Amino acid sequence: MITLVVDVIVEVNNKVLLIKRAKQPFKGMLALPGGHVEQDETVAQAALRELKEETGIKAKLLNILGVYSALNRDPRGRYVSVVFIARPLTKISKAKAATDASKLVWLPLKEIKKHKFAFDHKHILRDYLKWKKTNKTFWS
Amino acid sequence: MITLVVDVIVEVNNKVLLIKRAKQPFKGMLALPGGHVEQDETVAQAALRELKEETGIKAKLLNILGVYSALNRDPRGRYVSVVFIARPLTKISKAKAATDASKLVWLPLKEIKKHKFAFDHKHILRDYLKWKKTNKTFWS
Repeated sequence: MITLVVDVIVEVNNKVLLIKRAKQPFKGMLALPGGHVEQDETVAQAALRELKEETGIKAKLLNILGVYSALNRDPRGRYVSVVFIARPLTKISKAKAATDASKLVWLPLKEIKKHKFAFDHKHILRDYLKWKKTNKTFWS
Repeated sequence: MITLVVDVIVEVNNKVLLIKRAKQPFKGMLALPGGHVEQDETVAQAALRELKEETGIKAKLLNILGVYSALNRDPRGRYVSVVFIARPLTKISKAKAATDASKLVWLPLKEIKKHKFAFDHKHILRDYLKWKKTNKTFWS
């Protein structure tokens, strides 16, 4: 079985919004906000819902960065993630961690290379840095 | 359950490669080449495999057009499609319909509006015409 998930990249002032994971796998590690696509919602609805649940931020989706489907990207099994790029509609001072997020972190883009992340989220964030120059999509 | 599929857009000389569907649903109607993502392959591998199986064409993937996940887009249930844009590596004179395709059709882009298509493939093809101008991704 393949499980479909979404992740969301929100960048403000050269910083990207990350969560500290409240749960296993990768508990305590930095990750993009995201989660499962439910049976009764589109991928876009799932992306906006998960972002709102985990960070309190309402957003507008701008683009798809890519689709990540490498066989070993999630220790729980076969997970495929559609990654969106979004612009916040809420004041970012109102952002607040909840559900799967124990804490929020606004990480400067130039610090991505130095950090470790859950899943393949470092790979995704590096693709995002390339996307900013080319607007090309990515897949794994 | 959500089933993950892929579809592929191959354009050559202002014509897009379509299949006439050999099976239900939408038997006999025009559709993009595509099909299920198997457990042991990535979305990109699935796209190239399905294109090769149905049309004989080997290709290189160039970009993701979008992810289509509207709840009613497939009468069989909840199907989400990742749509790739690809460039053929095989001589197109060698293209040959097989498996789910009873026939291949190279449809001029300007005739898309006049035709009916299986699933939401007319919507996808219209998005592709917009993509050619903007390089922006789409989702439903």
